[in-house]
Amino acid sequence: MMLVNGKQSDTISAHDRGLLYGDGVFETIVIRNGKIDFFDQHLQRLAKGCESLLMPKPDIETIRQEVQSLCKGKTDQVLKIIITRGQSERGYQIPDNQQTTRIVELTPFPDYPSEYTTNGVSVMLCQHQLGINPALAGIKHLNRLEQVLARNELKNTDFTEGLMMDTNNHVIEGTMTNLFAVKAGKLITPDLSGCGVAGIMRAIVLELAEKNNIPCSIAKMTPADLLNSDEIFLTNSLIGIWPVKNIGEQKFKPGEITKKLKELTHQ
Amino acid sequence: MMLVNGKQSDTISAHDRGLLYGDGVFETIVIRNGKIDFFDQHLQRLAKGCESLLMPKPDIETIRQEVQSLCKGKTDQVLKIIITRGQSERGYQIPDNQQTTRIVELTPFPDYPSEYTTNGVSVMLCQHQLGINPALAGIKHLNRLEQVLARNELKNTDFTEGLMMDTNNHVIEGTMTNLFAVKAGKLITPDLSGCGVAGIMRAIVLELAEKNNIPCSIAKMTPADLLNSDEIFLTNSLIGIWPVKNIGEQKFKPGEITKKLKELTHQ
Repeated sequence: MMLVNGKQSDTISAHDRGLLYGDGVFETIVIRNGKIDFFDQHLQRLAKGCESLLMPKPDIETIRQEVQSLCKGKTDQVLKIIITRGQSERGYQIPDNQQTTRIVELTPFPDYPSEYTTNGVSVMLCQHQLGINPALAGIKHLNRLEQVLARNELKNTDFTEGLMMDTNNHVIEGTMTNLFAVKAGKLITPDLSGCGVAGIMRAIVLELAEKNNIPCSIAKMTPADLLNSDEIFLTNSLIGIWPVKNIGEQKFKPGEITKKLKELTHQ
Repeated sequence: MMLVNGKQSDTISAHDRGLLYGDGVFETIVIRNGKIDFFDQHLQRLAKGCESLLMPKPDIETIRQEVQSLCKGKTDQVLKIIITRGQSERGYQIPDNQQTTRIVELTPFPDYPSEYTTNGVSVMLCQHQLGINPALAGIKHLNRLEQVLARNELKNTDFTEGLMMDTNNHVIEGTMTNLFAVKAGKLITPDLSGCGVAGIMRAIVLELAEKNNIPCSIAKMTPADLLNSDEIFLTNSLIGIWPVKNIGEQKFKPGEITKKLKELTHQ
């Protein structure tokens, strides 16, 4: 079920800048037992993304109402919200009078095996890299070709997720997840000041770590740093926390800190 | 007038990956006096872009027919062709059975003052940079947020175009044009192996230079190299060649090589 600017529809204008230039932002949100997970945080990030891309503030109250009306009677679903810069004439110039396009959609919850959460997932290091651009770093925008190409490297493999490096060979994130490592009792997650998506679950984990006195740092991370870790796990809003059981051939055990953070996020 | 997969329409599915991820390529082509400029070259680049993004080969014969039918009786128009990876379920994974979306559209020719061609344009150096990613370099894909943000720097200025550097501070191109400089009788255009769009008019100019014994190189270019040039000009399919009359405060004169190449491209 999908609403486009509040009306039931599954099409958009072919002049929408979301299509023409990937000119917009999106959120992927979990609805569990009829409750919208971290809705405020997602709405805040959506607003921040719009601001970074010089788009008008999204009408949060309208989004709330549309989401509530769509979710009525639903239990476990994925909610996707897209805000684009709307239609314009040909050309990159941002129009003076931006009329954003708002898409709100519910889709069934993906069918991930529960062992991904309990035993962990196999991941690989992708060849495709993330270009560095601080102006776009952290934003969940619609320019996602890098992830599309990296994700394709997993095709016909047994790997569940692929890790991406930036063009300076620092490990940044998974194609659809953020990355955490634990070394000597200390939590580390890659610095996203140059590229990557600043995930909501990443922020939640960082907050929980701080509240629970788990030492934590945001830092540059090489593949060697990562492979030298004691524990590794992935996060996103849909999956919560997935321990990593191996990167390529190298095995990892889900350890105490991963376990504790899973408990703290109620997994 | 617009055809979506051969049918008159101005909408696409909101599940189209062109919208969701900027997952596709496009061409902007000139129709002058009813003749399609460099049509074969554009179709070749479209096919090459699809190949680079692991999309199916576009059906060139169908595109030709659709373009011919749209163009009937038209004289001066801009033809835009977009090919996206089509619809898929949520997630970056490229679907096994890709059904691309084909959009063909005619719009009126933009109303550029003729003095841009004769006397040249004022350009500025943009703050927004191009991320480096060799896997996407050269392709005219739909991930264009960098250009959108850079283009916006021109707002409320008298500059006609903005030049963009990559994150290594090499000058790469304009937001909608390719860049050429002339120094001591030698033509230079920036290396696009890390980022940028390999424009059709850029290729035409390179070819004409070679045929006409104008020494030419593709090289890395710093802002200082650029400002030390004798002549500078911009190219794209719509504008042909625009001499640059100033970059910020620094003035340039349209010189002999710019003039010769303008003649050779029949401007």
